[in-house]
Amino acid sequence: MKKIGMGLIGPGFVAMHHIDAVRRLGDVDVVAIAGSSAESSARKAKEYKVDRSYGDYRALIADPDIQVIHNTTPNHLHLPVSLAVLEAGKHLISDKPLALNSKEGKTLRDAALAAGVAHVVTFNYRGNPLVQQARGMVARGEAGNVNFVRGYYLQDWMTDPNVYSWRSDPAKGGVSSALGDIGSHWCDLAEHVSGLKIVQVLADLSTVIKTRYSAGASAEAFSTTAAGERTPVQVTAEDLASVLVRFDNGSKGTFSVAQVMPGHKNDVELEVSGLGFSLKWRQEEQNELWIGHHDRPNQVMMKDPGLVSPDARRYVHLPGGHQESWADAFKNLMMDAYAWIAEGGRPEDKPAMLPTFEDGYRSTCLVEAMLESAAKGGVWQDVAYVAGGMR
Amino acid sequence: MKKIGMGLIGPGFVAMHHIDAVRRLGDVDVVAIAGSSAESSARKAKEYKVDRSYGDYRALIADPDIQVIHNTTPNHLHLPVSLAVLEAGKHLISDKPLALNSKEGKTLRDAALAAGVAHVVTFNYRGNPLVQQARGMVARGEAGNVNFVRGYYLQDWMTDPNVYSWRSDPAKGGVSSALGDIGSHWCDLAEHVSGLKIVQVLADLSTVIKTRYSAGASAEAFSTTAAGERTPVQVTAEDLASVLVRFDNGSKGTFSVAQVMPGHKNDVELEVSGLGFSLKWRQEEQNELWIGHHDRPNQVMMKDPGLVSPDARRYVHLPGGHQESWADAFKNLMMDAYAWIAEGGRPEDKPAMLPTFEDGYRSTCLVEAMLESAAKGGVWQDVAYVAGGMR
Amino acid sequence: MKKIGMGLIGPGFVAMHHIDAVRRLGDVDVVAIAGSSAESSARKAKEYKVDRSYGDYRALIADPDIQVIHNTTPNHLHLPVSLAVLEAGKHLISDKPLALNSKEGKTLRDAALAAGVAHVVTFNYRGNPLVQQARGMVARGEAGNVNFVRGYYLQDWMTDPNVYSWRSDPAKGGVSSALGDIGSHWCDLAEHVSGLKIVQVLADLSTVIKTRYSAGASAEAFSTTAAGERTPVQVTAEDLASVLVRFDNGSKGTFSVAQVMPGHKNDVELEVSGLGFSLKWRQEEQNELWIGHHDRPNQVMMKDPGLVSPDARRYVHLPGGHQESWADAFKNLMMDAYAWIAEGGRPEDKPAMLPTFEDGYRSTCLVEAMLESAAKGGVWQDVAYVAGGMR
Amino acid sequence: MKKIGMGLIGPGFVAMHHIDAVRRLGDVDVVAIAGSSAESSARKAKEYKVDRSYGDYRALIADPDIQVIHNTTPNHLHLPVSLAVLEAGKHLISDKPLALNSKEGKTLRDAALAAGVAHVVTFNYRGNPLVQQARGMVARGEAGNVNFVRGYYLQDWMTDPNVYSWRSDPAKGGVSSALGDIGSHWCDLAEHVSGLKIVQVLADLSTVIKTRYSAGASAEAFSTTAAGERTPVQVTAEDLASVLVRFDNGSKGTFSVAQVMPGHKNDVELEVSGLGFSLKWRQEEQNELWIGHHDRPNQVMMKDPGLVSPDARRYVHLPGGHQESWADAFKNLMMDAYAWIAEGGRPEDKPAMLPTFEDGYRSTCLVEAMLESAAKGGVWQDVAYVAGGMR
Repeated sequence: MKKIGMGLIGPGFVAMHHIDAVRRLGDVDVVAIAGSSAESSARKAKEYKVDRSYGDYRALIADPDIQVIHNTTPNHLHLPVSLAVLEAGKHLISDKPLALNSKEGKTLRDAALAAGVAHVVTFNYRGNPLVQQARGMVARGEAGNVNFVRGYYLQDWMTDPNVYSWRSDPAKGGVSSALGDIGSHWCDLAEHVSGLKIVQVLADLSTVIKTRYSAGASAEAFSTTAAGERTPVQVTAEDLASVLVRFDNGSKGTFSVAQVMPGHKNDVELEVSGLGFSLKWRQEEQNELWIGHHDRPNQVMMKDPGLVSPDARRYVHLPGGHQESWADAFKNLMMDAYAWIAEGGRPEDKPAMLPTFEDGYRSTCLVEAMLESAAKGGVWQDVAYVAGGMR
Repeated sequence: MKKIGMGLIGPGFVAMHHIDAVRRLGDVDVVAIAGSSAESSARKAKEYKVDRSYGDYRALIADPDIQVIHNTTPNHLHLPVSLAVLEAGKHLISDKPLALNSKEGKTLRDAALAAGVAHVVTFNYRGNPLVQQARGMVARGEAGNVNFVRGYYLQDWMTDPNVYSWRSDPAKGGVSSALGDIGSHWCDLAEHVSGLKIVQVLADLSTVIKTRYSAGASAEAFSTTAAGERTPVQVTAEDLASVLVRFDNGSKGTFSVAQVMPGHKNDVELEVSGLGFSLKWRQEEQNELWIGHHDRPNQVMMKDPGLVSPDARRYVHLPGGHQESWADAFKNLMMDAYAWIAEGGRPEDKPAMLPTFEDGYRSTCLVEAMLESAAKGGVWQDVAYVAGGMR
Repeated sequence: MKKIGMGLIGPGFVAMHHIDAVRRLGDVDVVAIAGSSAESSARKAKEYKVDRSYGDYRALIADPDIQVIHNTTPNHLHLPVSLAVLEAGKHLISDKPLALNSKEGKTLRDAALAAGVAHVVTFNYRGNPLVQQARGMVARGEAGNVNFVRGYYLQDWMTDPNVYSWRSDPAKGGVSSALGDIGSHWCDLAEHVSGLKIVQVLADLSTVIKTRYSAGASAEAFSTTAAGERTPVQVTAEDLASVLVRFDNGSKGTFSVAQVMPGHKNDVELEVSGLGFSLKWRQEEQNELWIGHHDRPNQVMMKDPGLVSPDARRYVHLPGGHQESWADAFKNLMMDAYAWIAEGGRPEDKPAMLPTFEDGYRSTCLVEAMLESAAKGGVWQDVAYVAGGMR
Repeated sequence: MKKIGMGLIGPGFVAMHHIDAVRRLGDVDVVAIAGSSAESSARKAKEYKVDRSYGDYRALIADPDIQVIHNTTPNHLHLPVSLAVLEAGKHLISDKPLALNSKEGKTLRDAALAAGVAHVVTFNYRGNPLVQQARGMVARGEAGNVNFVRGYYLQDWMTDPNVYSWRSDPAKGGVSSALGDIGSHWCDLAEHVSGLKIVQVLADLSTVIKTRYSAGASAEAFSTTAAGERTPVQVTAEDLASVLVRFDNGSKGTFSVAQVMPGHKNDVELEVSGLGFSLKWRQEEQNELWIGHHDRPNQVMMKDPGLVSPDARRYVHLPGGHQESWADAFKNLMMDAYAWIAEGGRPEDKPAMLPTFEDGYRSTCLVEAMLESAAKGGVWQDVAYVAGGMR
């Protein structure tokens, strides 16, 4: 069987999960990885059980056995690495956020469209079957007009001041922290499920932990505290934010993000409400979709191939009660991405679920509008976004 | 046994629950009720199994067997009725909101202080044992500095456009609907549990259902649709709102209220978070307090006399697992109110849990600031409130 | 208003809750209580805010102002006290278990029928609106033939070996402990909701804590450990049991009871299943009824006057989301009991929900069959029960 | 990188999940599959993206590129296929149940020990990190002596009488249906987590649906109803059972299994209780471990590398809140299996979590004892099992 060759640049926290997902597809060959040095790359390649490794990402891009490249580098390297891939005319899967700001985001979106390749950004929560179920129910008008979209994305891994990574460093992680890192996920989900677009935002930002203690080497996400001497670093990026949003149909929404809320591990909640019913989905209970009714009992739809709508069924791989979760949803993203790639990556063939650089660029515009709203002291701010033609 | 005489003015939806609560105290005698006419009062008195009834509230106030009066009239009658009670020097328990606006609220607060009687406003969710448990844990500093307070109060009983009551009529219910009716509860809980005061607000309001159909006679709250001819009424008061708040310690908060969200019956959620832990309490699961930790398993404290702190124990009347709920929390409010009354109602004797006209007035100031913020298009608005000396 | 006079014999743990419930009815006058001595009765009467007290229960029975008597004495006194009440021709509400064994139970059932008074035994969980909702759904055949009934009743208050009360003493509590105390509740619920009768049982019993330490004076239920010298007592009654049951329609069931399972406070779960749907109700989440479906989403019906069936609505007193719990369900029992009493207590007028001495006697037969099954080493045992003519 | 060659015999429902799991390991090459005919095997191989296929399983066994064979054939073929693999001296991973009865089970266990290869049976729920966490906590004595083990395994996919597969046919599925299929999983979990062995059982069996309608061709598990003509088949195997068990330390247990309970998809609950605490784990909420306490708040430990014990950490692959579920637990089994294989498959190197033919044989003994108990009308039955020397 002819396999598609895949290479990965940036072997950090999420890299192993990219590799895991594509291995499950059966017809993808993980050819090589590239890290910051030949030594570290070789070490990671062994850990990941990958045969080839490169100390320079340009060499990986040039590898003729590789047709698809995954960019999982730190945020500040997204732009140069992704541009190099696109210039080489290879298919590209970028971790989110697509770029440090909307200018970079637009550059990448435009470059991807020009390159004519498949381009994907990992808003992976879309890959959950019940997210697709919710999206379908709303799209078919079953809930009626969407009046309100609410929720949050709360974590606690930065509760400890000894947690310090490139994500808190504006030069490497971008000027935003919590909004860019997890608020972007929430907004993507909100727009994807509701079918609406956010046109105005108003944000209130806080930096709860203003001094963090760096261990020097940049820690990976979710890593626990290492021992050793530490240097205090003043943090300016937000670790807590609440945002009001207005949608293009005139409806309202609101969400909060935080990375310093004890007890919340990866707590994403999204609720979309019309007069017909409310839909609520929590990432940590991703196999259940709550359907709230006014005049009859509420419902809990379990992820079950016999219960979901036909359009969501392709994302279900096990019977009801045999739960599917983070890695399975991530795999669904890759399943659609490689199906698109296998057909050539033409815009018109893009699977509807799949988030592209269009969505990645759009996300940078949303975060930027929020930061601007906050910088102005908390005012309503229009979202500046130039559509590029992708669905 | 000498019993305290109680009278009630305004036999609507909540009146029966006032009567039920004081009957449980054992030493309160429900002497009389007064409604809008002699006939309707007599009918309601029979239904409530009360011996005496009055068609004029002034007559009830004058009844020498009555020492305590409960004001459960529609909102626009709160001011005149409460003033008449205070002028008569009788103890007064008013349903919330205390008054239609902050001017009225201040008038009543000042009158209550001047009268030297016990004055209570029914922010009844305070009466839950686990609300008091949470308040104690925060007050003792166990959670650390409170960084964030979030939550919501969502209902669905106004989802049907045929629901129309005096609450939607600005002349009778006040200019605000959802914020005044249920947002006031949330804010009171948030301040009570966090020990903080809201000093600035920013609100975004919506009227999802702009035309409602009135059956003529004013329906009680939570009543189902009656048959018959109906008149369309244009509604201007909000049935949905999201609010950002800032506290006096510089911390942030946010909440949403809605009365048109299918599936949410009386869904109050409050979360108060410090770096030590997060506390989450949901009114519909009021026998559980969620305690979120970063570095050890989360906890769920059940309402159990052996588990709660000593200061919360007096609000627990049954062993763990023998759940206590709405009526029990309401009774706890009355238990403290009548204990205060029995001791004379002096300000310095007020039980710490008990909400007074000070809190009722404060609530009108908060709602007013939110409406003003929204009227200005969504700007940060200071809360104008003149403290009166009550704890 | 003419009030019904009520007296209570046995002012222990549950007595206050009997008094609380009847006070809420509005037309019942708590006239007097009787305890084990004049002094203790007077003290309890003051605590309960009751005017009259007796040191001898016969004096209370003779009080002409009393028409209804509540028997909340320790189990071994149920028989003599109840017989004395019935001989006096007064209405009688007995705490469960009705008696120490089936012989006593039959004596009391027969005496109650002969006396022609109202007779009630407090299987109080029936009073939950959603228990009545479930019963109605099954009775109307909506679930199809009931194939299986399962659940448990688990507590943890006897986990501490220093907990010792008359309940563990065969002479005072009866030969059974957990089965008689809480297993009886589960069986009553199972039969009440399923509409079936248990005809055969097979039980496996354990005494997990074989030595308990008595503080001398008999502690009340759910009481915490007191200090002081303690005497070891060998316990033979079961604190853990699992039981298989067979119903009169040939269907099967099973349940476990335990009073030494950490974390379970008063954890009653009952599930009744047909091919149409399964119904699951948990006492600690008593405002929700889970309805499990094979081919459509599961449902959660909240206790809401607009959602329950008409026959269950009379047990609902608050709108949805305004939760009702232990005390409210207990009050519902008293509401039906006193309504029956007000009409004269004739058998044909008994409200369908109300458990009588017939049910109390039946319960002693079930427990006895379980003990016999266990005593024989775990064999299937027929339930010996002589129906008496009550519904 | 040298990869281990894997082949699979029996491409039914679960086969794809075996292949998915081993692909994720990175160093396993899925070489070939074998089905019932050359045509069907070729079709399935294409679907699974496997290069090689065989119409005869003996040919697959002989393939020199294959070192490990997965046996996922229908139950009645487990014996001949597994024996052939063992005779060829290849490592063997068998789906559960290991065999149709204990005689076959012992034959296979003995053959596996004699062959000196790695042998694994897929009691896959062991692979959940929180199952290992629970096992570790019990093994370290933290819960105290285990007094009680309870739970259930409930499904609803056979609620429809049109569901008929080889599982209901005694000749192909074995004499037991629900007990063999899912009761075996529960017992394995119960023994694995508690560290105890079941020595006596008493079972009550039912066949709720006595007539099923076969579509002719044998349907796969969890498949929905197909159209077309159907033949009625009388079913004798149980689809519902409740069992009492006694452990080797004298403690008790009980569980129920059913495949006809609407709303329960794959609902496995296991609770293990000592006086120290109770542990409860539900498969459908597998990222949470409930820890019930008597004298302090209950806990919910989330699957989080920072919260679980060191010995359970190797089964955690994602940060807390990034849920891991069925496929991840299955992969963990394969991870340990192939790690064992890579080291040669010697008995003394077996990872402690990994279930072997010893466990598979033991399971057939347990099921057989239950069937015998039921056949005798419900009596206590000793478990006949001959230990073979594997841990």
